[in-house]
Amino acid sequence: MHYYPESIRNLIKQLSKLPGIGEKTAERLAMHILRSPRRQGEALARSIYDVKQNVRLCRSCFALSDRDLCGICGDPNRDSEVICVVEQPADMISIERSGAFQGRYHVLSGVLSPMDGIGPDDIRIQELIRRAASGNLREVLIATGTSVEGEATATYIQEQLANLPVTVTRIASGVPVGGDLKYVDQVTLKRAIESRVKV
Amino acid sequence: MHYYPESIRNLIKQLSKLPGIGEKTAERLAMHILRSPRRQGEALARSIYDVKQNVRLCRSCFALSDRDLCGICGDPNRDSEVICVVEQPADMISIERSGAFQGRYHVLSGVLSPMDGIGPDDIRIQELIRRAASGNLREVLIATGTSVEGEATATYIQEQLANLPVTVTRIASGVPVGGDLKYVDQVTLKRAIESRVKV
Repeated sequence: MHYYPESIRNLIKQLSKLPGIGEKTAERLAMHILRSPRRQGEALARSIYDVKQNVRLCRSCFALSDRDLCGICGDPNRDSEVICVVEQPADMISIERSGAFQGRYHVLSGVLSPMDGIGPDDIRIQELIRRAASGNLREVLIATGTSVEGEATATYIQEQLANLPVTVTRIASGVPVGGDLKYVDQVTLKRAIESRVKV
Repeated sequence: MHYYPESIRNLIKQLSKLPGIGEKTAERLAMHILRSPRRQGEALARSIYDVKQNVRLCRSCFALSDRDLCGICGDPNRDSEVICVVEQPADMISIERSGAFQGRYHVLSGVLSPMDGIGPDDIRIQELIRRAASGNLREVLIATGTSVEGEATATYIQEQLANLPVTVTRIASGVPVGGDLKYVDQVTLKRAIESRVKV
């Protein structure tokens, strides 16, 4: 690596800080950037700057956004009376990809984790309670994960919203679609049987 | 992908132009850049700019360099009377890594390829002849590859330098060190036997 000119060495160093990029790959990427047209390299550099400068959290739902209010909160075609509570931005993207939800979101910054000292005030649950208490919501759909912490967070939110004039729901859990029953873990199977629905 | 704010979408698009980076990986890298400290993201962006702005070819040997004259051509401890001719910058890096060469270089921009219309004037062979004719060189070591084009380029250079006051040598080819004979291809074995040395 010390055989390269300093600016190439530095680029390799910066690239190898990215997850899953080792020094060999970083070297290959650096050589590609070096050989690619100047405009393309600068477009990449600029897009990194832009992300670090422009991306913030939506003031209403805390999703990633380029503006003060995110695209979904600012979209008059979305149902403003239903919000879906997720643990993190990536979960919101997954739900958007499914196309199954037409309301808005509330993006927590993780889950409750008393062992790590993470309580309700750390993950924007107060902001959720405030939104639910505003009288503008019909339903809060809790879509935190089904890990122990995700379930505990869901239960906590449910209790906090119990006395507010809003319907609280939880995404169903059970056997994944397309899954072979023999590969499904026991806890999931138990849940799927307990939550069986009449057909 | 259209669920992300525009600046994140753009970063994902730029990252997925890199070789070996698909859209999923680009998404993961973009999320990492987003979450990393601002200083780190900007250091990456700056290193890309720097490479596109600073890296040029050494005016003497055409190696990649941050300056007018590369580190090796500017190093008084290297033997200035021996130059090693390579096809591309990566080959020079490999030779430097081996630590076996103490002279300077002449970096071609590829090999002769009449089928693709690439002749001697396209790959800096004139510049090599000029260096060899200067009277300042003792030896030219031809280290182009052992592909058909690499060999043809070596032969062409050898012919061009034949009447100049300089010794022309070619790197040895044969069985790779550490190689099991049964895995070595026939052409290489034939060459290794023809070029056998007395021990």
